[in-house]
Order: sequence, then structure tokens, then C-alpha cells
Amino acid sequence: MGRKVILMKFKLLKTDSGCGARRGRLETAHGVIETPMFMPVGTQGSVKSVSPDELEALDTRIILGNTYHLYLRPGAERIERFGGLHRFIHWDRAILTDSGGYQVFSLAPMRKIEEQGVHFQSHIDGSRHFIRPEDAVRIQQQLGSDIAMCFDECTPYPISRDYAEASAERTVRWAQRCKAAHQRTDQALFGIVQGGVFPELRRRCLEQLQAIGFDGYAVGSLAVGEPKAEMLRVLNQLVPAMPAAAPRYLMGVGTPEDLVAGVAAGIDLFDCVMPTRNARNGMLFTAAGHLQIKNRCHADDPRPIEEGCTCYTCARFSRGYLRHLFMARELLAYRLNTLHNLHYYLNLMGDIRAALDQDQFADWTREFHARRGSGDGGEQGAAS
Amino acid sequence: MGRKVILMKFKLLKTDSGCGARRGRLETAHGVIETPMFMPVGTQGSVKSVSPDELEALDTRIILGNTYHLYLRPGAERIERFGGLHRFIHWDRAILTDSGGYQVFSLAPMRKIEEQGVHFQSHIDGSRHFIRPEDAVRIQQQLGSDIAMCFDECTPYPISRDYAEASAERTVRWAQRCKAAHQRTDQALFGIVQGGVFPELRRRCLEQLQAIGFDGYAVGSLAVGEPKAEMLRVLNQLVPAMPAAAPRYLMGVGTPEDLVAGVAAGIDLFDCVMPTRNARNGMLFTAAGHLQIKNRCHADDPRPIEEGCTCYTCARFSRGYLRHLFMARELLAYRLNTLHNLHYYLNLMGDIRAALDQDQFADWTREFHARRGSGDGGEQGAAS
Repeated sequence: MGRKVILMKFKLLKTDSGCGARRGRLETAHGVIETPMFMPVGTQGSVKSVSPDELEALDTRIILGNTYHLYLRPGAERIERFGGLHRFIHWDRAILTDSGGYQVFSLAPMRKIEEQGVHFQSHIDGSRHFIRPEDAVRIQQQLGSDIAMCFDECTPYPISRDYAEASAERTVRWAQRCKAAHQRTDQALFGIVQGGVFPELRRRCLEQLQAIGFDGYAVGSLAVGEPKAEMLRVLNQLVPAMPAAAPRYLMGVGTPEDLVAGVAAGIDLFDCVMPTRNARNGMLFTAAGHLQIKNRCHADDPRPIEEGCTCYTCARFSRGYLRHLFMARELLAYRLNTLHNLHYYLNLMGDIRAALDQDQFADWTREFHARRGSGDGGEQGAAS
Repeated sequence: MGRKVILMKFKLLKTDSGCGARRGRLETAHGVIETPMFMPVGTQGSVKSVSPDELEALDTRIILGNTYHLYLRPGAERIERFGGLHRFIHWDRAILTDSGGYQVFSLAPMRKIEEQGVHFQSHIDGSRHFIRPEDAVRIQQQLGSDIAMCFDECTPYPISRDYAEASAERTVRWAQRCKAAHQRTDQALFGIVQGGVFPELRRRCLEQLQAIGFDGYAVGSLAVGEPKAEMLRVLNQLVPAMPAAAPRYLMGVGTPEDLVAGVAAGIDLFDCVMPTRNARNGMLFTAAGHLQIKNRCHADDPRPIEEGCTCYTCARFSRGYLRHLFMARELLAYRLNTLHNLHYYLNLMGDIRAALDQDQFADWTREFHARRGSGDGGEQGAAS
């Protein structure tokens, strides 16, 4: 097997003087990604309710696809026959695929872990499947994402130290097998650090993954129910030990406040269903917190969701109309809400990058919290 | 009450030498409408799943709003406070509102007709309402549509001659009251010809409406279950008697074949939920008939819905991807299907207008039928 030529390159542009925050640039076969960056979730080959053109207009640089969903439907071989996921979904910018591990553990009605892999049942039709780390890599190679993830076990919270240790060690052995199975030179492969809320397990897992060597490193099994302070403690203990030269990805996180905290801890990439899922539930993000569009107070309000917001929705539609669409369950409601929330998230990351560029991240962060108030809400998870 | 200055103007450009087909131009306060024209249905202030920008990109010139739905939710007073329906929904082109009559008779769980008006219950919350012709006009004036319709009773099929006669006579009395109540000078008011499948009732109703005098005349209570031949018989007996100088509108019709037949009979305007509703059910129109996108045969098909189609969807997405989106119930499926079907309908009308301009409507019609085959399908009705 020849030496792999990974097209992905990560350039660390700057590290903040006051915290772990970094400005970076990720070059992929499908475009440049300025970091810190948020990745909208396109679970089944579509960021729910929005078109590829709309994602581009939002300056989305990278989206996430869920391997578990795409493997089950329409199938990775089928997508490969269409020329890969980019061509299948008409998206020419970057794609990261998760490994499917999270969904196997969160969505499948039955699952059984063995050293070789995981038996599970499809949540769609109950069909039985067995996925090994090598299969997860093969599937992601068929999908042709720009960044593939190692197959891992996403552990719950709370978790015993013994289980977290055994699971993290297996995840490392699986990562070794993923690395050995990975062939595509135009696709990066990231390792996923596990170990629950136990710092020494996290650090040991990270060291073992680094010994194998990956193009980037992700933090898994956070935002799975643990208190916010616990998540931040894990991040602040783990992230500084992660290799500075590689991109760092915090999986499935989170609220705007979580993103700001994650950046401060030194994270470069985020994904979360929160902006899209909450949009479909009528929860809209603003600089001042969030609003529930279904509330009666919006019925006669001619103002946009957020004064001064430059998103497609705010430039055209009133809260009153958006409330009407939502109450009437008009399909347009889900799209207009999603466009606003994605704009909020992507714009937030742009503001963070600008603050880092100008050495004003600490000031920016204070102002961000002062404006947001206690606004924080809604569910989160790794599939839209 | 001063003399009304109706901004709407209808110019009859040409009548076909071989049939009743007409080319015309309708000028409204919100733009010019070349006729024959199809009006997409935007029941609740949204053509389901598509945005105003997308409607404009399709060269939609006029949409239909349902008075019954908008009156119940969000309410006509509310829309008036927002500056009218155009501003509320961010649509600067023309709008026709129906009178609500059809929905009162098709959707309300309870209704009771009196000479003064109709008692009915809301299908949304069961609340009780009483709408008189004067109310229907007032509501449409509050909505501020470019074309308002007289309050009428939409009769079913089959129907007794006695009931059809009594109903048509009441519809004429209601039309008189609508005319008397109508004030807006920037809004046209159309009368609706009733009379079931009885030519002499239809003609008498038309004469009585003409004696009152309206800006345009519509044919109601067709496509309510009668055989196609019956509908065409009524049209061919009625339409030639309609005043040539006024626009003619066939309400709630229909399939592509129905539109072609309606044009040949001398109709200028059509509306139907078929392109939008069928799209959401996965039925897609093509020159060769129609296809069901859910069918397995499309799963690996890299072709667009229709080769050579210039619509947004066909320019970007394969049948295989569209099938995947539909099977996965992705919201984008409904939009992409709707954009294609609306493009098909609007493009069909454009082709008809071009054929009329070039005196080739008969040849065009033969070719249309030869290509379409027996393709014809799906439900229809007057609300999306």
C-alpha cells in the first residue's frame, strides 16, 4: 500500500493570547473552511428543508452527513454509483461524514457490541446489520466525504469508570483498524477521543490515537446529558493536550454558548442539529436570546425575527407572517425558520473568527454573554 | 358612492380561427398577466413549500388565495393591519381570492344555507361563523386581492335540476349584493356562473350576472365529480355565450388535458391544486405523461424528471435523489417536486400562448395529446 497523499491541509493561523481559541484554515478537496466553523447537519443527504443553493448563500462551507442513515437508505453502493455523496446531493463544497457509531447507539432498536463490530437493527425496517470498523470506513469511502470519522462507541452519561475505560480501549482498537482499512487519498480520517468524563481516560485515549496518527481529532460522547460544567471541565482538561497542528472537532455540540465555550477551549469544528431541529419546532435564535414563534405575542408583530439581521427570512418576512405559517403548519415555515437559525449560527462563527483575527475574543465573548442573557434552550443530538 | 375606477383592464388580443381559444392580456394593480394563464394555489398565504422568489423565478404572474382559510386563520383584520395580503406574504404580483364559498361547502364540518348567508363551523377549531355575501366582499377587500370573487354556492354532482336552479338563482341574488357591497377601486370583482350541468340554467345565470355587470366571469361547480365529457359539454355550451371583452375563469380545473380543452373552449384563467398537491404526493408531470417518483425503478436513475426540462429541479437533481428524498420524507422533496410541477403547468400555458400567437393551436394540441398519451392522474379540488 503506497503512502497516502491526504489532500486535506490544516493551517493554524493564530492562537488567542487569553485562552485556547484558535483561528485556522482547513483546505479540502471541496473548498476552504475557515475555522472555527459550524457544520450544518444533513442527516439523510439534505440539510432539512433547505437547498444546496441556500446553504451556499449562507456561506456554508461544510455540512455533515450521517453514515448510519445513508447506509440504510438509500445505501452507500447506490450513492457510489451516482458518483458519491457530493454529486448525489448536488453539493460541491466539503462534507464530513460521521462513522455511524452514535446513531447505532442512539437510534437502533437493538444493538450488541462485540470486539469485531456492532450488530444492530435498522430503525426504518427492523432489518439486521453487522458493522465492523472496516465497514464504516468502506461505507464512508463509498460516500466520498472529505472527512471520514473512525467507528466508535458513543457512551452515555452517567457511565462507570470501568465501562468508560473498556469502551475507550475498544474504540482505540477500532480506530487502528479504521486507519488500516482507509485507502482514499482525497479523504481525511479523524480519530475520536472517548473516555467519558474521566480526564485520565480521555488523555490516554488521545495518546493512543495520536500514536496511530490521524488527520484530525474529535471529542465524542459529550453533550450526552452531563451537566454543562462537566462538559467544560472535560474540554478544558483534554483539548490543550490535543496536537496543535491538527483540526479539533467537538461532536454534536451545541448551543451558541457551547460553541463560544468550545472555541475558547481550543475547538475548531462543531456540528449540531440544534439550529435546524429547533427551527422546525419554531425556536429561533437571536443575539438577545431566543424566541418561540408560536407565541401569541408575535401574531401582529410586523418586525422581523431580529432587527438588523441580514438573513433571507428577516429581509422579507414579519414575525406575524412566520407565526401564521408555523401555526398553519405550512412547509415554508420550516425553511424560513431554518434559514434564519443557520444564518445565526454561521454568522456567530464568523463573528468569532473576526474577533480572533482582531485579538478581541475576550471582549467579544463578554459582549456576547451580556446580550444573550440567559437565552439557551432546546434539545440537541447528533442526527437532525 | 362615486363611480368606480377599476384598475384591472382586459385586452383581447386574438381569437383562434379554429376554436374558441383566446390570447389576452390582463392588467392589474400588481402586474400584467398574459392569458391563457394558470394560477398556482396559495391557500393559506403560501403556495405550499415554495417561496415568493421561487414563484417569481417560475414567472408566476398571479396566485390564488383562499378567503375561507385566511378569514379563519390568521384573520382578515389581521392581514389588513399588515397592509393587505400582498405585503403580509411578501408577494408583489397579482392575487385572486376566491369567495370562500367552495370551502364552506367542502371543508366545514357543518353548514346551513339561508337567504341571508351561510352558517358554518370552522374545520380548524369548530368555531361557528355566519358569512353573508357582504361579508365575503368585505373580507376580500381587507385582504386587498387584485381580483375578488362573488360569494356563491358550489353545487355537487350529481344534482337535481330543481336544486341547481334554486341555487343558481340565490347565487345571482348574492352576486347582486356582492356588487352593491364592493368598494375598492383597485380590485376587480368577478361573477360566478352556476347552474350545474344544465345548459339553460347556466345561460340564464350568465345573463343575470351580465345584467348586474362584473369585471370578469367565472365558471363554478365543474370538476366536482362529473364525467369529463359532461364538463366539456357544459363549457362548450356556456363559454361562447360569455362576453368576449371580459376575462373568463374556470375555477378549480384541472389536469393538463383539462387546461388545453378549457383554452379551446375559450377560457382565459385556471387554478388548481393538482400541480402542487400531486407534487407533495410524488406525482410528477412530464410531456410524456406522469411519473410516480416513489417507484423503485427510479432509485438508480441518474436522469432528471424530464430530459430537457429547464426547471430548477431538473437542472440539478436526479430521479434517484428525488426518490430518496421522497422515501425519506425529507422536506426538500416537496419543494423540488412542486417546483417541477408548477414549471410544467406554467410552461404548458406559455406553450399554449405561443401556439395561439403563431396560429398553430390546433397543430400544437394534436402534438400535445400525441406526446402525453393517456397520462392523466391524481386528485383535484379547490384548496391546496
